[in-house]
Formats: sequence, C-alpha cells, structure tokens
Amino acid sequence: MAADLTGLACPVPLHKYPTVQMAHGGGGRLSQQLVEDVFLPAFANPALGARHDGARLEFGALRLAFSTDSYVVRPIFFPGGDIGTLAVNGTVNDLAMCGARPRFLSVAFILEEGLDMDVVVRVAASMKAAADAAGVALVTGDTKVVDRGKGDGLYVTTAGVGVIDHDLVVAPMSVREGDVVLLSGDVARHGMAIMAVREGLEFESKIESDCAPVAAPVLAMLEAGVEVHCLRDLTRGGLASAVVEIAQAAGLSIRLEEAAIPVREDVRGACEILGFDPIYVANEGRFIAIVPERDADTALRIMQAHGVSGGATPIGTVATSPKGLVTMRSRIGATRIVDMLSGEQLPRIC
Amino acid sequence: MAADLTGLACPVPLHKYPTVQMAHGGGGRLSQQLVEDVFLPAFANPALGARHDGARLEFGALRLAFSTDSYVVRPIFFPGGDIGTLAVNGTVNDLAMCGARPRFLSVAFILEEGLDMDVVVRVAASMKAAADAAGVALVTGDTKVVDRGKGDGLYVTTAGVGVIDHDLVVAPMSVREGDVVLLSGDVARHGMAIMAVREGLEFESKIESDCAPVAAPVLAMLEAGVEVHCLRDLTRGGLASAVVEIAQAAGLSIRLEEAAIPVREDVRGACEILGFDPIYVANEGRFIAIVPERDADTALRIMQAHGVSGGATPIGTVATSPKGLVTMRSRIGATRIVDMLSGEQLPRIC
Repeated sequence: MAADLTGLACPVPLHKYPTVQMAHGGGGRLSQQLVEDVFLPAFANPALGARHDGARLEFGALRLAFSTDSYVVRPIFFPGGDIGTLAVNGTVNDLAMCGARPRFLSVAFILEEGLDMDVVVRVAASMKAAADAAGVALVTGDTKVVDRGKGDGLYVTTAGVGVIDHDLVVAPMSVREGDVVLLSGDVARHGMAIMAVREGLEFESKIESDCAPVAAPVLAMLEAGVEVHCLRDLTRGGLASAVVEIAQAAGLSIRLEEAAIPVREDVRGACEILGFDPIYVANEGRFIAIVPERDADTALRIMQAHGVSGGATPIGTVATSPKGLVTMRSRIGATRIVDMLSGEQLPRIC
Repeated sequence: MAADLTGLACPVPLHKYPTVQMAHGGGGRLSQQLVEDVFLPAFANPALGARHDGARLEFGALRLAFSTDSYVVRPIFFPGGDIGTLAVNGTVNDLAMCGARPRFLSVAFILEEGLDMDVVVRVAASMKAAADAAGVALVTGDTKVVDRGKGDGLYVTTAGVGVIDHDLVVAPMSVREGDVVLLSGDVARHGMAIMAVREGLEFESKIESDCAPVAAPVLAMLEAGVEVHCLRDLTRGGLASAVVEIAQAAGLSIRLEEAAIPVREDVRGACEILGFDPIYVANEGRFIAIVPERDADTALRIMQAHGVSGGATPIGTVATSPKGLVTMRSRIGATRIVDMLSGEQLPRIC
C-alpha cells in the first residue's frame, strides 16, 4: 500500500545531504542538484531557468550577456596561470559561451588576514594582463578581509558584461538532430596541471594549464555567419558533464567518438597514474561548439585558424535517441553511456 | 643630505604592511591605501579611477551602472537581516549611489564544506525576498565549495547592473561650494546590531540592522529634477569615512553639525559601552545626498516621503576650505577635524 506522503513532503528534498559536501561544488550531479533543489526554486525566474553560463539581459534593442563565477583554486599559482588569469578568462569564456563579446569585468577579492601582500600584487598584475589579452576592462571592484583561518589566501569573484550582436539563441534548446559537435582542442590539461602540483608529481614534460580566453574564435564564427546552436566551456566536470548537460537540456542524444577526443600523451599518462578519466577533467581554455552539419566545415576552419582552438576537431553528432543521453563509441567499437561527473573528482580546480 | 633613492624605490610602496591586515578590509585608510597602492596601479583605467561605488558603462546611448561587493558578515544571521539581505541591498544601494535604477543581480556563493544545507536555503530565500522588495532580478549565479576550515559558513558576492536615465554626473567631482549634505536617517544601527550579537550584549530595546534598499528615494529625487551632485551609502567606515572620501576627491571642505546627526538613544548607549563613535559605525540602509542649496528642500521632502529615508535631515554644507578636509562642530560649539576610519573598528560587518 502506498501511503500518501504529499502533505509531509519537505518543500526542498535535501534530506540526502543535510550539509554541504565538496561535491556540491564539483560541477557534476550534486552541483546540478544544488541548483535545481535550492537555487532555482528560491530565485525562480526565466533567465536563471535557461541554465546557461550567463544570463541574457535586454535593454530595448541592446542585448547583453551577464555572468559571474567565484574562483577558489588551490594552489593560487600553478603552471600556466594563477587564480587571477583564471578569474578573468573563466568569466570572459562564460560570456563568449553566450555568444557575447566580453567587454567589462568586476572583481571582488576575499583576502585572508596575514596573506603576503606580494601575492595580491602578483594576482592583480595577472588579472590586468589577462584582461588586456582578452580585450576586457576591469572597471569596478571590492575587497574584503576575513580572519586568519577563515579563508585560504585569497578568493576572487568576477562578474562580466558582454554584448550580443547577433540574433541566434545560443543555448541547448537550439540544438538539432544532425548537428555536429566540435571540440576546440585537447582536453584535461588544466585539471592535470593542478593535480600534478598538488600531488608533487614530476612528469617528463611539464603539464601547463590550458587557461586562455576563447572569445576570438567564437566571435569569428558568428561574424562568418555560422549558425552556432550551442557553446559550452569545459570547466568543472569536464567535457563529459558539459555534453551530458546539453543533451539533457535539449532532450536529444549526443554520440561521441572516443578516438576523436584529443588528449596529450603526458596528460593521458598523468590521468592514468592518478585514476582520472580525461573527459571528466576540468579545462579552462576549451569549449565545444554545436553547429548544423552544413556549417561544420566553415566552423572548423575558423576555429583552427585561432591559436587557442588550433586543435579543433569534430568529436560527435546529435541524434534524437536515446533521448537526453550521451553515448560514446570506444576505440574498440563498444558503445557506452556517458554520465555526468558523480561525486567530487578534483576539488577546487577553479 | 638627501640621497636619491628613486632607483631603489619599490614600485608598490607596501613595505609598511607586507601582509594583509584586517584593517585592509575595514573601509578606512588602509582599505583606501590598498586600492591606491595595489589595485589602481595594476588595473589602471578611467572607470576605476573615478573611485565611485560602481562603474559607468556606455553602450551607444544606453548608460549602465555596474557594481560588485563580496559579503563576509559574521554572524550570517543577525537582528534585522542576514548575509543574503545584505548581499542584495548592498549592491542595489551601490547602483543607486551611481544614480542608477537597479535591474539585475548575479550571485556567487563560496560555501564551506559541512555547512548546514538549511542555512543555504534560508539565505537563498532571504535574497529572493530582498530582490523582490528592491525590484531586481537574480539572473545568474555560481557556487563553489571550499574545504572545512577554509571558509566561514558562506560568503556571497553579488554584482549588479542598473540603468542610468539622466544626464547628471553623480560623483564627488560634481560637488560645489554651498551644496547641502542631506543624511537619510539615524546612523550606526547596522554596526551596533552586529556587535551586540557578537558580544552577547542585551539592551533594553533590541537594536536591528537598518539594512534596506535605498533606490526608491534616490530615483524619486532624480525624477523630480533635483540636481543631485553626489550620493554615497554609509557602509564600512560609516558616515565619517564617506564624507571624508568625498571631500578629498572633490578637493573641497565639508562642514558637519554633530547635533544634526541622528543617533537613536539605545544605539548611542551601545556605542558608548563598546567605545565606538557612531559616525564611524557601518550602516546598510543609510546614505547621504549632496545637492545644491536651491534643491535642498525639495530633496529633503522627497526623502522624508519614503519610509527608508523618513528621518532625512540636513547635516552640513560644502565650503572651499580647508580643502579636502571635513570639520564637525560639536554640541558645545567646538570644531574638530573628522578623519577617515583608521585601523579596523568592526571587522566583517558586511
């Protein structure tokens, strides 16, 4: 007999995790649940509901993208960048993923008492260099200080405003059967660069983060008239989580070819040593573009013409079924279902 | 003999404080020095140089205000509000201080592992309620999780976008000799509400934070054609630091009347017990408006007609000298110079 428990139901079904877990920040299933169970019901509005990397704001004929991210990466300095480059490029890339031209950033620091002032100076200099490289201006900011032991050196939060000057709706809802999934380059470098430092691992070649701004190839595709259906940067949760999120939101199936996904040999080796699957490892300068088949060649040529996406390659296609699922054909021809990152693989990667 | 040390000079003269002090976040002199010595040189651009509560962005004929703040208040819940109400109203008020109509907010959480999920739910609900009350939409967000012992429950960073639909330059540079300084109500309530909780003090009446959105009276003044010269909310560093900052930036003198500054009796009592001067204590729903003498009566009537600024009153005037200084005539007629908050009086007040 099924008792009617409706009247007893908690309005927010969080009993499974009554406290915050590291995985709630991991970009995988628990992150998604936190958004769906807590923030979407609390903040309920259409812009948030679109579940994109940023919101689209309209002021008469002007359309802007607006996005924010906090950065808590550990260590603060890592091969290929630091928390400052990440905080600029991460938000610049979120704006680019809305199909916007990044223009202005705000920056808010939470500093821990006792932090070397030199660290603040170096991070600020990195942010300025990254902002110049990405063509954005750091226009407003804030600084708070928390007591020793209540922070971890420094945390940085950036918010960004960009201009959308095309009529496409770049979002999962625009994805169609037959679309091609283009990946901008090799994956898993950022995550493995961070892990190598944390674990004190030495590899034959130094693995550097791929942290970089990706707006240029995106804007070039839009300017060339490529009908970009969806864009997503492959940060927390990696390639796999991004593709699964899009398939779920679009109600379509995405079929990936494992052999087509570039992973550098040393990165693959590091992943094997540490037990990671490269498709779940975070990147900070990689994205996927989902475009109609007729535009795929043009899009690919444009991506390949930009250094940051010089290694662009097609990795899959969109089908109608199995609905909401991502499948991947392995090197030996077997097909498996790709799930979202479950649990927390790489804490504080960004 | 004065040796030429130019060649030896550190480009950033921070030798006095080689590490971050709590006072660097206190809103007083050290906060100002951090901005002037580190962030302004690093980020150098005109918008930041204007040193306002937010930046002014121009897109053709459209002018927007853009602002951000991190909130690290302790405790998370306090009489009259919580970190969520503060994070919404604080950024809404920064936009209002630019003379903008607040429209959209982003919100980024840094959660500490192990935090009760119920706290996140309550704070999110507060943010929604505060956003609705202020007429803004929470449109995009982010969540990061840091390890236990690397945060303090939760930190919230909001950024906001508002629309400027008038031609005034609301900034210290617009302040003129003869202008009147209007204060929107009694001061020091937010700071003393927080301190009372922290110190476990019990007063005859409960002191609640004044945390509230102040955009409505500001927009009403602008709509009525009041030539608002400058606006400033009286957060970290309190009334005194805000007025000193404006006097310095404008290169003018501001003369205050101590007897004209309203402080509630219980708040004054709490300040005396704890050894605080109310003019340095933080507020979260109070602001000053500096207007030409001819508009002062109109401005005052409009402020008094709004609940949030119902206690508005003139507290001083602008003169040309002593340049860059604020003076205050005490109840017994003596005049003293009012300085910016020095050191850290009330850590983590917002």
